[in-house]
Amino acid sequence: MPDKIRVGIVGYGNVGKGVEKAIYDSQDMELVAIFSRRKPELLNSPYDNSKFKSYINILKYENDIDVMIMCGGSATDLEKQTVYVVQKFNTVDTFDKHAKIPDYYDSVDSIAQQTGKIGLISIGWDPGLFSIMRLLSEAVLPNGNTYTFWGKGVSQGHSDAIRRIEGVKNAIQYTIPIEEAVKRVKNGENPELTTRGKHIRECFVVLYEDADKNKVEDSIKNMPIYFADYDTTVHFITEEEFKANHSKMMHGGFVIRTGNTGENKHIIDYSLKLDSNPEFTGSVAIAYARACYMMNKEGINGAKTIYDIPMKYLINKSYDELLKEML
Amino acid sequence: MPDKIRVGIVGYGNVGKGVEKAIYDSQDMELVAIFSRRKPELLNSPYDNSKFKSYINILKYENDIDVMIMCGGSATDLEKQTVYVVQKFNTVDTFDKHAKIPDYYDSVDSIAQQTGKIGLISIGWDPGLFSIMRLLSEAVLPNGNTYTFWGKGVSQGHSDAIRRIEGVKNAIQYTIPIEEAVKRVKNGENPELTTRGKHIRECFVVLYEDADKNKVEDSIKNMPIYFADYDTTVHFITEEEFKANHSKMMHGGFVIRTGNTGENKHIIDYSLKLDSNPEFTGSVAIAYARACYMMNKEGINGAKTIYDIPMKYLINKSYDELLKEML
Repeated sequence: MPDKIRVGIVGYGNVGKGVEKAIYDSQDMELVAIFSRRKPELLNSPYDNSKFKSYINILKYENDIDVMIMCGGSATDLEKQTVYVVQKFNTVDTFDKHAKIPDYYDSVDSIAQQTGKIGLISIGWDPGLFSIMRLLSEAVLPNGNTYTFWGKGVSQGHSDAIRRIEGVKNAIQYTIPIEEAVKRVKNGENPELTTRGKHIRECFVVLYEDADKNKVEDSIKNMPIYFADYDTTVHFITEEEFKANHSKMMHGGFVIRTGNTGENKHIIDYSLKLDSNPEFTGSVAIAYARACYMMNKEGINGAKTIYDIPMKYLINKSYDELLKEML
Repeated sequence: MPDKIRVGIVGYGNVGKGVEKAIYDSQDMELVAIFSRRKPELLNSPYDNSKFKSYINILKYENDIDVMIMCGGSATDLEKQTVYVVQKFNTVDTFDKHAKIPDYYDSVDSIAQQTGKIGLISIGWDPGLFSIMRLLSEAVLPNGNTYTFWGKGVSQGHSDAIRRIEGVKNAIQYTIPIEEAVKRVKNGENPELTTRGKHIRECFVVLYEDADKNKVEDSIKNMPIYFADYDTTVHFITEEEFKANHSKMMHGGFVIRTGNTGENKHIIDYSLKLDSNPEFTGSVAIAYARACYMMNKEGINGAKTIYDIPMKYLINKSYDELLKEML
């Protein structure tokens, strides 16, 4: 590969920082710019502050960037930004609102097909690597059941929800798979598991001085969707403890499929243990940015998902090397 | 999908029987014929003996079969048969001699490109699913080490090698990962492991009455390539014990990658536990036969590997269903 793939980052939160690190670790890629709605002079990179550019000027970089990694939030940013950016650039994003994926796909596809770019959506580890495992496991073992467990890990959404409660100064939430449930699945028992039967939620909360402990605990445990359907434990800790023990954004999980061919049982088990969710997510996004670039060069365009991408495009090796060293 | 995919099987050993079972379990597929070099009237199927046909007539089925699953042995059969069959049919095979894959790829490719068919090579779980995991894990976590362990499982090649020793009536060989080594890898210690440090080999042997026990044991333990580089244990058992406890062709293994992004560690762990190696292999082959058929319909041809196949082609679901239910 003679020229480096020229990459841009849109959004400089945790995932954006993870992507930045992954680009500097990739020999075949070059970071051209990081676009943010914040003022460039207010942002700080551990690598190079001159890369920060204003988001409003992004389309002007049309000839300088091969792939844009969209690192905005799934809640509101991506639905607006990706359809805008894919007008001029190939994009890779980490859109993770499962229920909204079909609509999101359609809106990205309608623009990307017109502009001849690829909009590769919902890349990361779930959706992402776990999506591969769900499909692949079911395809090769059609008669069976697939289980996805998350954790032990930090849920940013749930942590945010706690922080919005009155009296809460800081908070973190861990999603934890219930060991007994995982064990039953791995034993091939094919259990029917409820939401409450799969995961517990453990919260560590720092209160303001005048806060009402019981009221905060009740507000957390009864919060619909986020906590009410789970067994939730709440620990109140000091700010010092919080900083010392709860600063890592660890995550992970399993996709397990158990099934059979006739009377013979088979178990397929994929697991991730991640010290840093955003850095790993950024690293996955970069591998798929490589694929996005290669496939667009071959004339492919439109919205794509992880299910459209042959593995050979993900890695900076020739096909001959893959045949010799990896297959 | 209106019409069923019409599938043929070439070779009726253990894998061929596994493929047959997998086809009867697939709603979108139909078994047209099983080709063998043995006389059709001497073969027995649990499903339908009328499917057996003579291998010498195989090219006459040109208009009746969409994909042929090549189930001959990698030792000598496949190198001859695949280049012959791919003249008229898309093929999927389980060629597993890692060192010979590049040459095999070239020879299949030169025919398949001329004939407009797809020759999808080296499908199964290793090479196959494990190949996916090796590439995918390295792509998303470039700074790290990948380890492949096999077993606990039966190696047909090693079992055959023991059976060829004078005095041996029957034999089976289990490859077993060394637990301590697996543990160190999963701990992220990045150990350097020798061949002897990764797996042990355990053999169960039934002797003829007049056989020399010590001589057989020595012949096994000192056999170059197969056993000399491993710690090998040999158990002599009766024919009754053999039949009672050693008739399953179980196998499995792990692909583990440990690595880091900066100071943050990550572990990716894929494992298979298979009660029947040939039935699972057959089931994988059938999923990839589906892909082979779909891609050839789109005009793709030539030799392909698992690295060329987008996941969406593996499963009998529409893309809309994948977006809604699986991603």
